[in-house]
Amino acid sequence: MDPVRLIEIKEDIHADNERVASDLRSRLAQQGTFLVNVMSAPGSGKTQTILRTIEELRDSLEFGVIEADIDSVVDAETMAAHGIRAIQLRTGGFCHLDASMVKRGIDEIGLEGLDVVIIENVGNLVCPAEFDTGALKNVMILSVPEGDDKPLKYPLMFSVCDVLLINKIDYLSLSDFDRDAVRERVLRLNPNIQIFEISAKTGAGVKEWAAWLGREARRCIEA
Amino acid sequence: MDPVRLIEIKEDIHADNERVASDLRSRLAQQGTFLVNVMSAPGSGKTQTILRTIEELRDSLEFGVIEADIDSVVDAETMAAHGIRAIQLRTGGFCHLDASMVKRGIDEIGLEGLDVVIIENVGNLVCPAEFDTGALKNVMILSVPEGDDKPLKYPLMFSVCDVLLINKIDYLSLSDFDRDAVRERVLRLNPNIQIFEISAKTGAGVKEWAAWLGREARRCIEA
Repeated sequence: MDPVRLIEIKEDIHADNERVASDLRSRLAQQGTFLVNVMSAPGSGKTQTILRTIEELRDSLEFGVIEADIDSVVDAETMAAHGIRAIQLRTGGFCHLDASMVKRGIDEIGLEGLDVVIIENVGNLVCPAEFDTGALKNVMILSVPEGDDKPLKYPLMFSVCDVLLINKIDYLSLSDFDRDAVRERVLRLNPNIQIFEISAKTGAGVKEWAAWLGREARRCIEA
Repeated sequence: MDPVRLIEIKEDIHADNERVASDLRSRLAQQGTFLVNVMSAPGSGKTQTILRTIEELRDSLEFGVIEADIDSVVDAETMAAHGIRAIQLRTGGFCHLDASMVKRGIDEIGLEGLDVVIIENVGNLVCPAEFDTGALKNVMILSVPEGDDKPLKYPLMFSVCDVLLINKIDYLSLSDFDRDAVRERVLRLNPNIQIFEISAKTGAGVKEWAAWLGREARRCIEA
């Protein structure tokens, strides 16, 4: 396994993010690579969810991961330790990824042999929701301990995502998290969102979510 | 109880934030009001912690709360329901508070009769750490389910705070959260930080943290 590669990103926010995102999406479609952007608050379990998901699908699909962090490389090291091709974007204070940053990550990781690239965005429910990364699908994770009021407080994030993973359902017994209330609040913001309940720790529910991801990836690759 | 007041904040980020923060701090010192800025990721338990803390101290100190949210008023409504003077700053997409926004909140809530004003910042471990709000003390909350790696990933937040509250210790039994590792990582970034372990749900540890806050507030008021 190669040591973790590291890119420092300090450029200004690009005004032409939409154009860069759209160009990146076209290029990925031509190459038949499926790009997914995973967003959540800090500590919702992005890294563990991505690992579990890849474990579930790696027999049939080849994965790469673009990790984003303000100031560490721990997540890319975790991926590398599991034999997953990964690259770390160190954002140097930026609280989100934009399409140009993702493009640099894609250029560095290289698409040869990769069917699916997963972006693990910066842990933040605010800013990442505002930037198109070029991904074909946006996935957000809400973990049970964060509480069922989050769709009221971060509506844009819930509105821009294709999938909501409700993670850490193994904590439900200790929590007053109201699953029905969350569903109702989320579907009011975004009637087309797919919702899966999972525990990345125990593996509960991961098969169903991974099956959805596998289907979408194959549809993109075969198109 | 008055209905919750609401201020929409859409101004640009002020370049002169440091000056505004410093002026606000002087004004509060003159009036003998202690301003505390509470920051955390979404769902770490800011609102519940603030409620518990005020319950603990309200016999001897008069509290006001400035709530910040992108797009809701639920937290100020919660405070108002508990008979606490509160105002909601709706940031309209901004992912943090700066000193000018806090100043507007202070002007609106009014300082007459208030000993302590608590700011509940936007749920975000990135951007709020970069903006001086004018508060005399910065407090951050890290909840157990978020994981013990957060000091590695959001070092600036841990560096700028005077107090770390490790919340949701009632979840420790279900978690592999390593308290010693967190302490070591945090103290390496910030040797002077005060660390308290609490559960805002059960009330465990809240007395010790509230005693610290009460002492600091009285020192400010009597100065």
